[in-house]
Amino acid sequence: MSDRLPTGATIGILGGGQLGRMLSVAAARLGYKCCILDPSDDPPAAHVANFHLKAAYDDVDALTRFARSVDVVTYEFENIPTDALDTIERHCPIRPGREALRVSQDRLTEKTWLADLGLSPAPFADVADRAALDAALAELGTPAILKTRRFGYDGKGQVRIDDVSEADAAWDAISGAPAVLEGFVAFEREISVIAARGLDGSIACYDPGENEHVDGILRKTTVPAAVSHSVATDAVLLAGRILNALEYVGVMGIELFVTKDGLLVNEIAPRVHNSGHWTQDGAPVDQFEQHIRAIAGLPLGDGSRSGDITMENLIGDDVDGIDAILRDPSASLHLYGKGAARPGRKMGHVNRRR
Amino acid sequence: MSDRLPTGATIGILGGGQLGRMLSVAAARLGYKCCILDPSDDPPAAHVANFHLKAAYDDVDALTRFARSVDVVTYEFENIPTDALDTIERHCPIRPGREALRVSQDRLTEKTWLADLGLSPAPFADVADRAALDAALAELGTPAILKTRRFGYDGKGQVRIDDVSEADAAWDAISGAPAVLEGFVAFEREISVIAARGLDGSIACYDPGENEHVDGILRKTTVPAAVSHSVATDAVLLAGRILNALEYVGVMGIELFVTKDGLLVNEIAPRVHNSGHWTQDGAPVDQFEQHIRAIAGLPLGDGSRSGDITMENLIGDDVDGIDAILRDPSASLHLYGKGAARPGRKMGHVNRRR
Repeated sequence: MSDRLPTGATIGILGGGQLGRMLSVAAARLGYKCCILDPSDDPPAAHVANFHLKAAYDDVDALTRFARSVDVVTYEFENIPTDALDTIERHCPIRPGREALRVSQDRLTEKTWLADLGLSPAPFADVADRAALDAALAELGTPAILKTRRFGYDGKGQVRIDDVSEADAAWDAISGAPAVLEGFVAFEREISVIAARGLDGSIACYDPGENEHVDGILRKTTVPAAVSHSVATDAVLLAGRILNALEYVGVMGIELFVTKDGLLVNEIAPRVHNSGHWTQDGAPVDQFEQHIRAIAGLPLGDGSRSGDITMENLIGDDVDGIDAILRDPSASLHLYGKGAARPGRKMGHVNRRR
Repeated sequence: MSDRLPTGATIGILGGGQLGRMLSVAAARLGYKCCILDPSDDPPAAHVANFHLKAAYDDVDALTRFARSVDVVTYEFENIPTDALDTIERHCPIRPGREALRVSQDRLTEKTWLADLGLSPAPFADVADRAALDAALAELGTPAILKTRRFGYDGKGQVRIDDVSEADAAWDAISGAPAVLEGFVAFEREISVIAARGLDGSIACYDPGENEHVDGILRKTTVPAAVSHSVATDAVLLAGRILNALEYVGVMGIELFVTKDGLLVNEIAPRVHNSGHWTQDGAPVDQFEQHIRAIAGLPLGDGSRSGDITMENLIGDDVDGIDAILRDPSASLHLYGKGAARPGRKMGHVNRRR
């Protein structure tokens, strides 16, 4: 049996942001065309895709046309409505599959699933209502972070609680949505593993990168992470367990806390990941091509790293500094073609060889 | 004065083949959109461009709309009709400029121009008619190659003459078109320099690569070329003279013969060049981004080389071998998204780190 996507086939991508954009370019390099479904007028991925279908993610007619016009569907974000998945799956496969979405769309489900797998998520408690928040704060202490179970990214849908007296304000800030409270983790560093699993079950991992966040948004990733060989090995083994348990197909980003007691899993993302952008200039096969290879049933690249790289996001008016980047012989610039450089908006990134 | 193209601007590309395709991806990486003008239904560049205008290169209405909708025009091939240039230049700049096209569109003009500049083209003679062919053969001897003055590429429009008795057949083969006869050159190797000149007059060159042709089509480029430092320096100086004399803006491919008496100029191409594809995996800024930087008025990359690379074209059914390439950790695959793998058709290329 061969599920290999033939050259010239079309890949459907849900979401036309920068991840969809870089996936589309990688797909083209492997001889595929891409169709982007995205509700906005001029999404970044449309600039480099064969076709852009402008439609909402709950537009059943559009989703049906989309799914009929492509050979496989993938996505750049995990919050895809279940109804959309039902519609698409009537016509073509979705990769990564639904189990990965089910687990990662909900923080509580994800943490419970990880714990059931024998892994260690950061300490957490279910916050179903206001009373549960008090109980969770009593259990986990402060500081802690209250996060909505669904629809959070880049620091959105979350609020830090430094003292129990802030509980009411925090509860209001998330509008009383179902949430989890995450306890404080005294981590030495945050790392992430970008791992891939092919349609044939083979697994490939890149070397862990070390991440710095500012205001909940990734600012910088440095590879290799300053961790021991055994920690890096543990991270890779852990990634392998997650991917195999989900019978995953594609690239996944796995964020980890390195603590004196070992690795805690912060979050998994069933897609290419901002902390893997360094692979574009530090690996023969980057995470975007690796993802396309996986969902197309092609052999995976082996994940080897060709150099030491620091990736920095260009956020908001950081893009005003591109002249210096263009003049830096160690730097490779990647812009996303977005219009206004609003504060907090990811406009591009730069990879620097060290 | 700043002629710098602002982020979000649109670049028009004449021609939607693999060169236009890779230019479009590079432009996107720098935050630009591309509009491709190409007469075919599904040109490779359209898969990764913001817009494809399907029109003939002599369609004045379409050219006018095209030129009005973009901020600067560039091209992937040199045989652009003069009328098309006139139409476009009424609305926006063309880079590289017309002098480069005038010189390179005609082999006789090109060779004469190079000689006037004090450089050494391969030995040649004007063949305006059948009688001139006999005179040229008497002057240059055999073997020699008869080439039409215009519209030749990848071995098309040329015929080898091993003996004067073949003159009639050769003349028939090119249908009696205005031609030049090129004398035999006892070269040690063929190399090429990929050079760029910015809008500000700055120049950057990549290390010369060594080329192997089969049946008039480039088969393989190896960098660095096995030449002495002084030969490489001569090649770079010569490239600089050509670019400055043309007040050139963009990337140019310059093919050279290395002989025991020095460098002879085989051909210049006012565009990104097949022998520069190695830069995609062997230089921080590849030739496609370098070209976009030049025509957009951005600072040039410095042309530094990050590794030793062999580029091989995948021609015709060579693409049947992509599985081995995908499994080779030293290889990066670049496919062009073309349909049928006809003999002689360039379907993609592979860069291998050595």
